[in-house]
Amino acid sequence: MSLTLEKIFEAKNRIAPYITTTPLIRMEKLDEFLGCQVYLKAECMQITGAFKLRGAVNKIKTLTPEQLSCGIVAASSGNHGKAVAYTAKKLGAKATIVMPYTAPAIKVNAIKELGAEVVQCDTSERFEVAERICKERNATMVPPFNDEDIMAGQGTSGIEIMEQCPDIDKVIVPVSGGGLIGGVSTAIKGMNSSVKVYGAEPAALPRYSASLKAGKPVKVEQKKSIADALVAQIPGDKCYPYIEKNTDGFFDVEDEYLLKAWKLLLTEGKILCEPSSAIGIGAVLQGLAKVEKDEKVCFLISGGSVGLEQLKVLEEVTL
Amino acid sequence: MSLTLEKIFEAKNRIAPYITTTPLIRMEKLDEFLGCQVYLKAECMQITGAFKLRGAVNKIKTLTPEQLSCGIVAASSGNHGKAVAYTAKKLGAKATIVMPYTAPAIKVNAIKELGAEVVQCDTSERFEVAERICKERNATMVPPFNDEDIMAGQGTSGIEIMEQCPDIDKVIVPVSGGGLIGGVSTAIKGMNSSVKVYGAEPAALPRYSASLKAGKPVKVEQKKSIADALVAQIPGDKCYPYIEKNTDGFFDVEDEYLLKAWKLLLTEGKILCEPSSAIGIGAVLQGLAKVEKDEKVCFLISGGSVGLEQLKVLEEVTL
Repeated sequence: MSLTLEKIFEAKNRIAPYITTTPLIRMEKLDEFLGCQVYLKAECMQITGAFKLRGAVNKIKTLTPEQLSCGIVAASSGNHGKAVAYTAKKLGAKATIVMPYTAPAIKVNAIKELGAEVVQCDTSERFEVAERICKERNATMVPPFNDEDIMAGQGTSGIEIMEQCPDIDKVIVPVSGGGLIGGVSTAIKGMNSSVKVYGAEPAALPRYSASLKAGKPVKVEQKKSIADALVAQIPGDKCYPYIEKNTDGFFDVEDEYLLKAWKLLLTEGKILCEPSSAIGIGAVLQGLAKVEKDEKVCFLISGGSVGLEQLKVLEEVTL
Repeated sequence: MSLTLEKIFEAKNRIAPYITTTPLIRMEKLDEFLGCQVYLKAECMQITGAFKLRGAVNKIKTLTPEQLSCGIVAASSGNHGKAVAYTAKKLGAKATIVMPYTAPAIKVNAIKELGAEVVQCDTSERFEVAERICKERNATMVPPFNDEDIMAGQGTSGIEIMEQCPDIDKVIVPVSGGGLIGGVSTAIKGMNSSVKVYGAEPAALPRYSASLKAGKPVKVEQKKSIADALVAQIPGDKCYPYIEKNTDGFFDVEDEYLLKAWKLLLTEGKILCEPSSAIGIGAVLQGLAKVEKDEKVCFLISGGSVGLEQLKVLEEVTL
């Protein structure tokens, strides 16, 4: 366990020229809906549209010039792939992004437009293919979450929250493999141990709730949920110890409440995000996260990768 | 001309318990698209979803208890009507909102849910009907823009901009009758006369461009535009002198660029607003508003009243 607040501050300086300090929006309009003082950490307004850029830049900036010249590889059709492709372009390195055949053309093209090579394969083979490319080319894999440099980068969002609102009471973070909450909880607890940090994950994939109960990372069954960015079946083994140490609880959110939360954020909050990002708000709507009227509660809105055509599903959702 | 910066500061104190200080969002993600340092004054995140609440509260709070007890009346199917209904409810007064028969049921119901009476009539008769109701009941009309108390309320958004970013260089404001820019420009020039304030209006309805050229308020032909909240044909005669004195130029924005701006703000900026509110960004995209890379430019995003079904038109728009 080598991740420390100091390392996250180092990451903050390292990535500063490449990222934007995302706004912490005081969203008073949502107070009556959620029953607390609502703050939104808008990572959907990050340069590449999601927090993932923080970790990718931090990881790639630690590579030697020789490593960089051999190229970098990532297996991701989502925000992580975009972040790696963007960073490689900025640093003049070659990126290869491994994507499943099923990835929509719009996502494939977006990655290509950033100058990255796209290799497509079956979904089940993507990590294997990425590993093979790394070996063949002596290239470096940039993992999506299970890495302390990645976590350090994501943790910079936590430092920003504490700097933007030093008297925040609670922070609720969307969770998949644990890279974001691993970094954010380490940063926040390091700066002020009395701030509560919670994770929100889909009820269909409660990998952290189950693991914390078991006292070690356990794998949950693969099930579908509307939270299409929160699909890890098992906690990252490098993330898990930080989360076990630095978080105050997990909420398993049903799709029904996640959809309500997503609609609320868009129609009342006027913020467009991807469905996964609204899961913390869903935890309040479902009654899982207990909040008080005078508490300052920060919802980390992790990303904004969503097509307008996806919003049609919201027409059926009632608030 | 009795509107002064002092009166706008008085309004700020008067309305403080009823409104939210809207965020000024530093939107670095849009810098590359617009060629300047982008700041968004998010009035779409105001409690009732638009800046209109500021003026309505300021006006209604200046009424005597006797006046309040006779009720208030407004002719508006949009953000102004909603603001007046909301304020009346908060202050325990009766509001009557006159709306055209053609107003969508969703808007009529939203006003009714705020406890207001809705009177429907032909669009052309709505001001006449509202006046008649005022006379019959000795009630007070709350005008949408042509009133110095209304302007003072709207001007509080300008004070907030200056407090949130004292070194802002330019502010671009959507314009219809002139209540918003009348107040905002008076506030900003009063606080720092070197800040430039511009208006953006639909090319189809260039009432201020035409009037400033003529040196007096002139009425322009009624034409359609996508900016459905910016429909005044003639400047308010009480607004005009302040705007003549305190603004630095007007941009007549074509629908084509307004649509691009609206889409840009939603898909890249992740902010949902009504089409009219994106007109300032449209002025930059159309090449009318000249901005520099190191300039801090604030776009006032006036409101967020838009149904998700209206977003379909954006699928055809290219950035």
